Amino acid sequence: MTYVVKIGGAIVDDESSLNLVLDRCAALDKPFVLVHGGGRVASTLADELGIEQTIVDGRRITNVDTLRIVTMVYAGLINKNIVAKLQARGIQNIGMTGADANLVRAHRRIHPTIDFGFVGDIDEVHVDVLTMLLSNGISVVVAPLTHDGEGGLLNTNADTMAASIAMSLQTKVESDVQLRYLFEHPGVMQDIGNTDSVIPLVHAADVAALTANGIIDTGMLPKITNAVDAARVGIDVRIQHVSALGTISGTHILC
Amino acid sequence: MTYVVKIGGAIVDDESSLNLVLDRCAALDKPFVLVHGGGRVASTLADELGIEQTIVDGRRITNVDTLRIVTMVYAGLINKNIVAKLQARGIQNIGMTGADANLVRAHRRIHPTIDFGFVGDIDEVHVDVLTMLLSNGISVVVAPLTHDGEGGLLNTNADTMAASIAMSLQTKVESDVQLRYLFEHPGVMQDIGNTDSVIPLVHAADVAALTANGIIDTGMLPKITNAVDAARVGIDVRIQHVSALGTISGTHILC
Repeated sequence: MTYVVKIGGAIVDDESSLNLVLDRCAALDKPFVLVHGGGRVASTLADELGIEQTIVDGRRITNVDTLRIVTMVYAGLINKNIVAKLQARGIQNIGMTGADANLVRAHRRIHPTIDFGFVGDIDEVHVDVLTMLLSNGISVVVAPLTHDGEGGLLNTNADTMAASIAMSLQTKVESDVQLRYLFEHPGVMQDIGNTDSVIPLVHAADVAALTANGIIDTGMLPKITNAVDAARVGIDVRIQHVSALGTISGTHILC
Repeated sequence: MTYVVKIGGAIVDDESSLNLVLDRCAALDKPFVLVHGGGRVASTLADELGIEQTIVDGRRITNVDTLRIVTMVYAGLINKNIVAKLQARGIQNIGMTGADANLVRAHRRIHPTIDFGFVGDIDEVHVDVLTMLLSNGISVVVAPLTHDGEGGLLNTNADTMAASIAMSLQTKVESDVQLRYLFEHPGVMQDIGNTDSVIPLVHAADVAALTANGIIDTGMLPKITNAVDAARVGIDVRIQHVSALGTISGTHILC
């Protein structure tokens, strides 16, 4: 069994939430893959540098200045702080991007009207080195950058990175991958104001109706879409509170 | 035989020099360790952010803002661009800091009068994972950051990182490590203005005299000191021009 855990920018940006997740990861007691975002930290640096950021359809338009920022923030600042914090917990681990070990190859997003710049859509996931590391007891921390195979880095959605890596592990290596999307809520909630209203199961067939009535909002939709894709290949996928990693609470996504 | 190659900030900051070195590394045709600096790029970012930099005894005083900068620049921007450029050359490789795989543990520099901040002096090098990667055909690109084992990152001299990793490989794993310090000159020169004046051999015993008469300047001295340390454990150490990697030209350092 291998856990692929995704944490977003809100957790990364909050010291106590981050420490909580890393404690939970350490308690899994087996090597894991931790995929992190970092959009909030990137936006802060962009502000400091006076580089305006534009988000379209939940994706950051990534010109050359913004690519530099996300490379520094995701692969440098966030990734290496997480790696060091896990080492402090006795967890042997290595931080990677999709360029490292050729983990995730991508191409620049093709869109009829919007130029997303250096945003990468995934072509191939190569889990051979990742698998060697995991089987040698080494966890891997993944920053949401990919590469184009021609020396260029690309900015790729972390939810999609997590699902793609999980799916590649599940289909090529083992059949008991556990994908966890962790966030500040206890799961997908019927009523966002009521933490007791977690929906325990969401089937792929429910997604359209839940989106139409606003229970799944535009921010959550890509996560759910990725989760459904992963569930389709037999992965156990759950959307959970940061503190719930290692339990079966939260929202279980089924295909 | 394993090459440990060090390139400094001047090479990293110059696209054509960097490409030349990466071509030469790719032509080695065996897995290598490439340690890079990046001080010039870090200074540029510090300027953009209005964070003043102070260099004492060749070391960057590293307060919390500067630690953030070097983490972003060394482990993010520079390391991942090199990793992607090597992938484009068909070289399977992973980028690491001293925190990754617990490669290099360090402590904050202790000094009677100067507070260097988050500057790390090396305690231990752990080459077990590095060796596993190399023996599986995977080269490793190392950024000059270490960790303190308590979750903190530290800014460590790249020349020293290269020598320490080479020495650990030489003494623990194999006895044919080749350490190469590459820079923009053809070697240690009798007359800096004359490229034909390369000193082919420098013995440890010569260093004091060469320093006294200015042939080894204060910028070069730490490199020579590290080189001599490495030569003492039987490593073949050469200071060479960027284009010379793979040849025996340049200055051979002997203990």
